[in-house]
Amino acid sequence: MEMPKAWIISIGNEVVDGRVVNTNASWLGRKLTLLGFNVLRVISVPDVEDEIIDVIRDAIRRKIDVIITTGGLGPTYDDKTSECLAKALNTEWVLNEEALEMVKEKYLRRGLPLTKHREKMAMMPKSSKPIPNPVGTAPGIFIEVNNTMIFALPGVPSEMKAMFEEYVEPILKEKVPKLEIVEETIRVEGIPESTLAPILDKILSKYSRLYIKSHPKGEELGKPVIDIYVKVSSHDRKEAEETLLDVIKSLKEELRKLGGRIK
Amino acid sequence: MEMPKAWIISIGNEVVDGRVVNTNASWLGRKLTLLGFNVLRVISVPDVEDEIIDVIRDAIRRKIDVIITTGGLGPTYDDKTSECLAKALNTEWVLNEEALEMVKEKYLRRGLPLTKHREKMAMMPKSSKPIPNPVGTAPGIFIEVNNTMIFALPGVPSEMKAMFEEYVEPILKEKVPKLEIVEETIRVEGIPESTLAPILDKILSKYSRLYIKSHPKGEELGKPVIDIYVKVSSHDRKEAEETLLDVIKSLKEELRKLGGRIK
Repeated sequence: MEMPKAWIISIGNEVVDGRVVNTNASWLGRKLTLLGFNVLRVISVPDVEDEIIDVIRDAIRRKIDVIITTGGLGPTYDDKTSECLAKALNTEWVLNEEALEMVKEKYLRRGLPLTKHREKMAMMPKSSKPIPNPVGTAPGIFIEVNNTMIFALPGVPSEMKAMFEEYVEPILKEKVPKLEIVEETIRVEGIPESTLAPILDKILSKYSRLYIKSHPKGEELGKPVIDIYVKVSSHDRKEAEETLLDVIKSLKEELRKLGGRIK
Repeated sequence: MEMPKAWIISIGNEVVDGRVVNTNASWLGRKLTLLGFNVLRVISVPDVEDEIIDVIRDAIRRKIDVIITTGGLGPTYDDKTSECLAKALNTEWVLNEEALEMVKEKYLRRGLPLTKHREKMAMMPKSSKPIPNPVGTAPGIFIEVNNTMIFALPGVPSEMKAMFEEYVEPILKEKVPKLEIVEETIRVEGIPESTLAPILDKILSKYSRLYIKSHPKGEELGKPVIDIYVKVSSHDRKEAEETLLDVIKSLKEELRKLGGRIK
């Protein structure tokens, strides 16, 4: 069975121009991968309407199963995610009553009136479900189009993470047949990556559902240091664990033959 | 004059599945922005041929001025950037003699033979210029197609940064009319972002080439804390600096009127 596909879309000038490091995307990438999704693309775009619309349409056209966007849901002029989502889907952008209640409640509790800018956070594409924000003010947006599920979450990491874990993850778990992933990283010293390459090719050719990648980590006392990451995925946990044990065993044998020191 | 456009493309399973945080992209985004480029998209794709080819073709079709890729230049089976670049450009993938000399020199110095896997690092799209790697082994690739300049750099941050600064940056500086960018961040306590929004709108409407963005930073003792980032760009440094002073002055006045505490 093919794994469902996911795209992560980060929206905000501060992400593309490098003022912030995109830790939201790596956190989501890890979550989605371990849930059994194949994360095929992570895209950051600035707060530019055409760019945001274009990338959402592109994901839908490619029948990506799940799209998670972060950022652009706040009250300021350059928070455009919700409106762009409506435009990308050719849907009306309307006041969502359920979202309005969520926003109202936050401000009234603090004794603040509901201004035009605050009300904007309750505007959503028609047929959206608002996602409660337990940490901040702006609700998230959940909308399904054909077979694509779109979740729009805020860019503030604490809000994004709470909303993903409390609301998004339970929905995704129901849609995805659970995939078991086991992984291990071995650090080896004294073997150049180019010497390692044919060994990895040989081991890879023996197993399906196996992924190996070498990451050079520089040198120590003139000797190359390399991390070798091994991942096995299967719908059966026991099978995945046994395969991982086999692979690690053969790999260590080959590394020792080449004079490598396993750390 | 319109600013030249840039895309950053990060290649590697470890980036999309969240095993690493993409600090390469933020470092490059900052560099390109301060050089005067408009970074329109940052895209990470896995080591999957179709995905890599597709995203490179997309950038060329959109007439992006500069594309920087990172990752996928090493000797292992899943390092596919160079070959995919040739396919995306419909160009032959050939042994580059200049690159071969660079690779040879690295290994012969260490007393290691030139294997097939090592030679692979000298394979490049026809008409490429290899970029010397002062830190590691794999050369980078520079190729121009119509009016798009493509630079393929390694994913190891120390190699990528050295090659960008020594080789890529000087080429970009010649192509771009220098843009002066001045920026400042003000931290204000005690004003909710939604109260801030109309103030920022008002100031923005008075200046061209001004960019303002509020970033909520949580709460302190029950009071919202927000960073307000202000950026002014101009081809004239003095003008940019004077505008920034003006904006910061009006902004602080407005914040104090609202009872905000500037930190």
